[in-house]
Amino acid sequence: MATSTTGTTGTRAGDIPRDETHRLISAEKVQGTPVYNAQGEKLGTIEDVMIDKITGKVAYAILSMGGFLGIGERHHPLPWNVLTYDENLGGYNISLPADRLKVAPSYGADEQVDLNDRNYGRKIHDFYGTAPYWDPAI
Amino acid sequence: MATSTTGTTGTRAGDIPRDETHRLISAEKVQGTPVYNAQGEKLGTIEDVMIDKITGKVAYAILSMGGFLGIGERHHPLPWNVLTYDENLGGYNISLPADRLKVAPSYGADEQVDLNDRNYGRKIHDFYGTAPYWDPAI
Repeated sequence: MATSTTGTTGTRAGDIPRDETHRLISAEKVQGTPVYNAQGEKLGTIEDVMIDKITGKVAYAILSMGGFLGIGERHHPLPWNVLTYDENLGGYNISLPADRLKVAPSYGADEQVDLNDRNYGRKIHDFYGTAPYWDPAI
Repeated sequence: MATSTTGTTGTRAGDIPRDETHRLISAEKVQGTPVYNAQGEKLGTIEDVMIDKITGKVAYAILSMGGFLGIGERHHPLPWNVLTYDENLGGYNISLPADRLKVAPSYGADEQVDLNDRNYGRKIHDFYGTAPYWDPAI
């Protein structure tokens, strides 16, 4: 299960030293963090992060939007640096107009998408204007 | 809560396309994955991953060992590339003798450790002989 609430609270003993670090953030804390647009409207929540096993880099944060109990929900793979943390909102900010986000690469629960596929990866990185997470040499 | 079982199973609709990727792995899947030593003995499980917000790189995977219901448990921050996934074991392998792991940098639930502190970071990277996750220029 995605941790929709525990992601933003760290009350477990042992969590405290990790969650209070500044430059580092635990994946658990990222999971469930809300994402807002430039107007401060909540778009959805970060459901998970995809890690590139070879480089140890976060390839994508998966933003989940819409739906009800998982039905009709759409998953948007976002390059990590598209997200900016906003202390006041207590969540990430993404400066992308709603109509742009609607046409952003995304998939539903019933769609077979291979995030590992570089053509799909290029689609994502082209859309957001970011450098791909992979090194072409690897 | 750390996802001790959901980390290794991906049955939720929408998980399938993410979990089947080869080079990429979801943080949710890493969380709860067992870690074994060279003798195939289970040492503990990966509790969480710490992400460097600036570079988007995984700084550490947190290995939790011992204890009962969180009491007496020790948390070992491991550099990402110390872990090797073993298909047969269905978990990570760490080629570190038990007596070495005992003296590895670790903390208990009641200890205040700042993982963000570079002196602590150097201790970890010196111990495992890995390059620090940070770029000295940032």
